[in-house]
Amino acid sequence: MTAAAPLNLFDYEALAQPLMHPAVWDVIVAGAADEITVAENRRAFDRLTIRPRMLVDVSAIDTATRVLGAPVAAPILIAPSGYHAVLCPEGECATAQAAGRAGIVMTAPSGSHRTIEDIAAAAIGPLWLQLYLFPERERSLAMVRRAEAAGCLAIVLTVDAPRFGRKDRSLRSENDFDWPESGNLAGLPPPTLPWFRGAPVTWADVDWLSGVTRLPILLKGILTAEDAALAAAHGVEGIVVSNHGGRQLDGVTASIDALPEVVAAAGDHCEIYLDGGVRRGTDVLKALALGARAVMIGRPVLWGLAVAGPAGVADVLAILANELAFAMALSGRPTIADIDRTVVR
Amino acid sequence: MTAAAPLNLFDYEALAQPLMHPAVWDVIVAGAADEITVAENRRAFDRLTIRPRMLVDVSAIDTATRVLGAPVAAPILIAPSGYHAVLCPEGECATAQAAGRAGIVMTAPSGSHRTIEDIAAAAIGPLWLQLYLFPERERSLAMVRRAEAAGCLAIVLTVDAPRFGRKDRSLRSENDFDWPESGNLAGLPPPTLPWFRGAPVTWADVDWLSGVTRLPILLKGILTAEDAALAAAHGVEGIVVSNHGGRQLDGVTASIDALPEVVAAAGDHCEIYLDGGVRRGTDVLKALALGARAVMIGRPVLWGLAVAGPAGVADVLAILANELAFAMALSGRPTIADIDRTVVR
Amino acid sequence: MTAAAPLNLFDYEALAQPLMHPAVWDVIVAGAADEITVAENRRAFDRLTIRPRMLVDVSAIDTATRVLGAPVAAPILIAPSGYHAVLCPEGECATAQAAGRAGIVMTAPSGSHRTIEDIAAAAIGPLWLQLYLFPERERSLAMVRRAEAAGCLAIVLTVDAPRFGRKDRSLRSENDFDWPESGNLAGLPPPTLPWFRGAPVTWADVDWLSGVTRLPILLKGILTAEDAALAAAHGVEGIVVSNHGGRQLDGVTASIDALPEVVAAAGDHCEIYLDGGVRRGTDVLKALALGARAVMIGRPVLWGLAVAGPAGVADVLAILANELAFAMALSGRPTIADIDRTVVR
Amino acid sequence: MTAAAPLNLFDYEALAQPLMHPAVWDVIVAGAADEITVAENRRAFDRLTIRPRMLVDVSAIDTATRVLGAPVAAPILIAPSGYHAVLCPEGECATAQAAGRAGIVMTAPSGSHRTIEDIAAAAIGPLWLQLYLFPERERSLAMVRRAEAAGCLAIVLTVDAPRFGRKDRSLRSENDFDWPESGNLAGLPPPTLPWFRGAPVTWADVDWLSGVTRLPILLKGILTAEDAALAAAHGVEGIVVSNHGGRQLDGVTASIDALPEVVAAAGDHCEIYLDGGVRRGTDVLKALALGARAVMIGRPVLWGLAVAGPAGVADVLAILANELAFAMALSGRPTIADIDRTVVR
Repeated sequence: MTAAAPLNLFDYEALAQPLMHPAVWDVIVAGAADEITVAENRRAFDRLTIRPRMLVDVSAIDTATRVLGAPVAAPILIAPSGYHAVLCPEGECATAQAAGRAGIVMTAPSGSHRTIEDIAAAAIGPLWLQLYLFPERERSLAMVRRAEAAGCLAIVLTVDAPRFGRKDRSLRSENDFDWPESGNLAGLPPPTLPWFRGAPVTWADVDWLSGVTRLPILLKGILTAEDAALAAAHGVEGIVVSNHGGRQLDGVTASIDALPEVVAAAGDHCEIYLDGGVRRGTDVLKALALGARAVMIGRPVLWGLAVAGPAGVADVLAILANELAFAMALSGRPTIADIDRTVVR
Repeated sequence: MTAAAPLNLFDYEALAQPLMHPAVWDVIVAGAADEITVAENRRAFDRLTIRPRMLVDVSAIDTATRVLGAPVAAPILIAPSGYHAVLCPEGECATAQAAGRAGIVMTAPSGSHRTIEDIAAAAIGPLWLQLYLFPERERSLAMVRRAEAAGCLAIVLTVDAPRFGRKDRSLRSENDFDWPESGNLAGLPPPTLPWFRGAPVTWADVDWLSGVTRLPILLKGILTAEDAALAAAHGVEGIVVSNHGGRQLDGVTASIDALPEVVAAAGDHCEIYLDGGVRRGTDVLKALALGARAVMIGRPVLWGLAVAGPAGVADVLAILANELAFAMALSGRPTIADIDRTVVR
Repeated sequence: MTAAAPLNLFDYEALAQPLMHPAVWDVIVAGAADEITVAENRRAFDRLTIRPRMLVDVSAIDTATRVLGAPVAAPILIAPSGYHAVLCPEGECATAQAAGRAGIVMTAPSGSHRTIEDIAAAAIGPLWLQLYLFPERERSLAMVRRAEAAGCLAIVLTVDAPRFGRKDRSLRSENDFDWPESGNLAGLPPPTLPWFRGAPVTWADVDWLSGVTRLPILLKGILTAEDAALAAAHGVEGIVVSNHGGRQLDGVTASIDALPEVVAAAGDHCEIYLDGGVRRGTDVLKALALGARAVMIGRPVLWGLAVAGPAGVADVLAILANELAFAMALSGRPTIADIDRTVVR
Repeated sequence: MTAAAPLNLFDYEALAQPLMHPAVWDVIVAGAADEITVAENRRAFDRLTIRPRMLVDVSAIDTATRVLGAPVAAPILIAPSGYHAVLCPEGECATAQAAGRAGIVMTAPSGSHRTIEDIAAAAIGPLWLQLYLFPERERSLAMVRRAEAAGCLAIVLTVDAPRFGRKDRSLRSENDFDWPESGNLAGLPPPTLPWFRGAPVTWADVDWLSGVTRLPILLKGILTAEDAALAAAHGVEGIVVSNHGGRQLDGVTASIDALPEVVAAAGDHCEIYLDGGVRRGTDVLKALALGARAVMIGRPVLWGLAVAGPAGVADVLAILANELAFAMALSGRPTIADIDRTVVR
C-alpha cells in the first residue's frame, strides 16, 4: 500500500465521499432529523474507557467466536443495508464474498439488488437474511422459503421500522439519483396492498414467523429491557440492539448505552448483538465487554465498496478485525471468552 | 412543494429571518441577558433520550387528546405571543384560523393587535385568552368579560412577568421599528395608573380571578414544586410550566427540566402544560412522557406567519403534529394514553 | 444614553479594552497559568440554575442589607484591587466616591496609589481597608492605626497570597508599562526586609492582628471548610470566599463552588462573602442563595473607571444593583431576607 | 531571559515544533488511533480542582522527597522515552546530566542511542533503567547485568507493550526520516528470534527478573486495581500508573483517573508513580494528592532537548519544580508530606 492507503475506517469514509454521487452519499450518511442519535452512537463509545490488564500471555490472540453456534473468525457481522449495487456492480454478491473470505457472517438485506439466490451462490461463507415483513404473509413466507432454500442460517427480522425513517438531510437530494430496483423483491408474489419499507410488525408476527421456519430468528432494533424480556419470552434466538444507525427516530438512546439493560433482561436466554457506531476495534471490545456476542457494521462496508469494491470491503473487515486483535492484546484478553465486564470502566 | 420547501421548524426559522425587519427579528429571537436559558431550553431536550418500544401495532396513530376536557387533534397549543400583526396583516386572526384548521387551541394574547372579538369571529377552533392582570381590577374584569362573551374556553394568566423582561440583544435595536398599537387593549376602560406589561400579580389576584369567572384558569410561568402545590391549593385548572421562552429571567431552569417537579407536586390536581424550546415532534413526546398534557409553541408560529402567513402557520403545525405521530409510531406508543414515563431514559 | 451605551458589565469590558494600554489590560484580565480558574469562576455560576417563585408581591424590591452590622444599599462591595490610578487620575478616591453614592462599601487596597487618608477624605460612604501583612509588625501596625484613624470600618486581611501570583499572560508584557508607585505604602515606616506582595501570613498573625485592633477582621481567600472552621475558632468576623479572581493558583475550585462548604463550616459564626466571577445580578442572587451575605466585584469596577472614570464605576454599580433588583423581582424574593437555598436548583 | 523566553512547558512545545523534522514531531506527539487517551490524560487533570489551605507557614517550601528510598530534589522523574539522540547530539547523556543537576532521577530507555555505560558515565545523578524484555532471557539478563554494573538503581519494566502501539498520525510519515540505530541494543548478544518492541511479558517473567537481580523493580503501565494487587503479591517495589502517553491502546482510562484504584489496591505495599499528561506544577500536586510518590514526564523533556539541548531540559525541569514549589506554597502544603487527599476536591 502507498502512504495514502487508508489506515482505519475513518480514512475509508473520507476516501469514499468524493467517489460517490452526492445524493448517494447523503442518503447513506444521513440520520433521522437532527442526527443527534447518529452522533451519540459514536460519543457514547468514546465516553467508555478501557481497563487494560497487563502481563497476560498475549503471544497468540484469537478473535474466533460463535454466532448462533456457528464458528466465525471474529465477532463482527455485516449489517443488512441497501445501496451495495449503487456502489459496486456486483452489489451484495461482492460483499458476501468479502465477508466469506474474512470468515464472518454477511446479513443480506431483503430488498437487495441481487437475488438472495445469487448472493448465496456467490457467497463463500455463512449468510443470514434480513427480513422486513410484508402486509401479505404469503409474500413474507415466500421470502423465508427462498432464504431457507438458499442456505441462509438465520432470519434477522427488522422491528424498528414500522415507518420509513425521515432523514431531513437526504430528503432534499434523494430524488437527484436514479435508484436501482430491488431484484430480490421482484422474485416475490406481487403485492396486493400498497407497501413500502415500514409496515407495522407485532409480536404476533414474530410468533407466526417462528411457526413457519426452523431458522433461528433475531430481532433487530430492540433498545429496551422490556422488549428484550418479551423477545426472550417469545423464544427468539437473538436480539440486535440497534437504532438503525440513527436513521429511524432521532433522539433515541445510543445503542451501546442501551446494550446493558438488554443484556440484563435477556442475556441468559438469547444472544445479544450490537449495531450502531462501531468504527474501531476498541468499539468491538467495549461492546463485547458490555455483553454483546458480536457487533454489526453497516456504513463502513459501503465505504469499502465505494473505494475498492470487494477488495475494499475485505480491507475494511481486515482493519477492524486486526484492530480488535490488537485491542485484545493490549488489554490483556487473548480470547473472546476473556472479555468480560471488567474491561470497561 | 419545491425542493427548497421547509422540512422542519428550523427550516422555517432560517427562511423567516431574511424576510423580517432586523429589529423585529431581534425582538422575537431575543432572550433575557446572556440567553443562557434560551439555549438551555433546547439543550435540556437533547439531553433526554427516548426508549422506543417495538412490535406494537402502530398501523394507526392517534394524536388526539383533550385539553381541559375539550377534544383536540394533537397535544399542541399556540402559545400566547405578540408580533402576529407585524408579520402578517391579518395578525392573530390568521393564526387562529390556522390553529382551528389544525384542530388545536389558539391562545390569544391580551395585548393582541386585533381585538379578541375579531379573533373569535375569525377562529374556527377553540380559543383561550392569555391575560396580564392590570393594576385596575375593572380593566382586568372587562377583559375577562369580553373573553367570556367571545367564547374563550379558558384564561391563561401569565404569572412570570411582574417586570418586563430585559433582552440585551433587542434593547439595542427595538426602537428602530414602529411597533403597532394593541387594538385589543384599546377596547378597555382607560388606565388610571401608569402601566406596562409586568404589573405584580399575587395569589390574592388568582383568587379574585377565580371568583369573577367560571372559565377555567391556567397559570403560565410556574417552574417550582412549591408554586405548583400552591396552584393546586388555590384550585386552578392548569399550570403552564414555562420560563417565557427564556425572555424573563436569564439563568432559570430549562422548562423541561422543571416539568417533573411540577408534575409530582400538582399533577394529580390539575393539568400540566409545557412551554419552551419545543421544535421537534420528539420534544412533544418527551414532554408528554414527563407528565405534560400538551405543549405550547411560540416562536415557530411566528416563523410560519413570516414565511407564508396563515398557510405557513398551518404548515408549521402540520409538520410538528406529523413529527409527533411519526415519533409515536417509531416509539411504539400509538395513542397519547400510551405515552408514559418509560418513554424517556 | 445612546444606542451604544453599555447595557451590562460585559459591554463595559468590551468598551474598556481599546481604551487601555495593552500591558495594563493584560495585567488586569490575566489569571494564573492557563486561566482555568478564571474561566471556571464564570462557568460555575452558569451551571447553577434559578428556581423562581411566582405570585409574590414584588411591587417593591429592597436590595438593602447589612454588612458587619452596617446598612448598605445592596449586597455588593468593591473588591480590593490595584490599578485604579492607572485608569483614572483620581484613582481610588474616584472609586470610593462612586461606591459611596451607590450606598455600598469600598474596600481600599493597602497598596493604593492615593493614601488611605486621601481616600477616606474623598469617600462619602463606608470604607474597609484591605491589608497584606508585612514581615515587620510595626509596619503592619502603622497601617492598621492609619486605617482606624481614617475611619475604616473593617480590615480585610488577604490570606491567599503568600507568594505573588504568576500570570503567564501578563509576564510577557507587564514591563512595557511604567507602573505608578504606591503612595499609601510610602507613608509607612521604611521596610527592614526585602518585601513584596506575598509575604507568608499564619494564624498567629491573625491572632496578633485581632489583639491590636478593635476593627472587625475578615479573611479574604478562604476556600475550604477546614480553614473556615479555623477562622471561626480564631474569632474573625468575616470570611471572603475567593480565589483572587483566579490570579493566584490556577486550578483551584471556583469560588461559588467552594462557597457551600465554607458556609456550612462557619456560617453560624461569621459573615461569609463571595468574590470571583460576579458579572450579573443573577450571580449575586445565586451567591446569596448559597449563603453569602454579599459579593465583591473587582475587574468590572476597573472597566467602569477606564470607560468613564467615577461615572463609569457608578454606572457599573447601578447596572449590577438594578440587575439584582430585577432578578429578585422575577424570582419572587422582594427582600434580601427572602433569598434562601431554594433559589438555586 | 528575553521577553520571548518560554514561561511554561506549553511554550517549550510551541518552540520545539518548528525546530523539528515534521516526521520526528509527528512520531513524538502521536498517540494511538484517534488520540482520545492523549487528550483525556490532560482533561482528566483539568477536571480535578485544588482545595488550597491558607495561613500555613510557607516561608520555606521543600519539594524534596525519596523515591525507592533515595533522596531526590523533587517528586519528578524523567520518563523513559526514545528520540533523545534525534533532538540533541549527546542524546540520553545530555538528558541524564540535566536530570542530575536538577537532583532528580533519569530513567534511561533500554533502546537508547547511547549505551547505558555512556549514559552512566555522563550522569551526575541517580539512573534507572527502563527494560523491554526480549524473547531470549540471556539478552534480557545481559541488559540487567549491564545496568547493575553501570550503577543503575532500579529497573523499570515496561509491561504495557506486548505489541508496538499503532499511531495513525505518524504511520503516514514516520518513514520520511532516517532514524538512528540504538547503540545500547548493539551491545547485547545477537537476537535469535525476530523481535521488536512489544514482545509479550507475563507475571512469570516478572518473577524471573526478581530472581536474577537485587535491583528494585517497578512495573510501568499498570492501570487497574487487579494488576496492582498482583504486582504487590509478586513483590515488586513500585508501580508506574501509565498508559504510555496514550501511545498504546486508544480509549484506555486517563492515567490520573486510574491512579486512585491502583493506590487503594497496592499503595500499602509498594510505591506508586504517575506518568501521563503532566505539564504543570499543579498536575504534580494533584497526582501526589491522589497517592503518587512522584510523577514522570516524557514529551516535555524532548521539547527542552529540541529547543536548547541539555540547558533546555534543565529549564523544563526547573520550571516544573518551581511550579510545584509555587503550588505547594499557594495551597498551604510546604512539604511533600503535607500533600494528602484533601488537596483535591
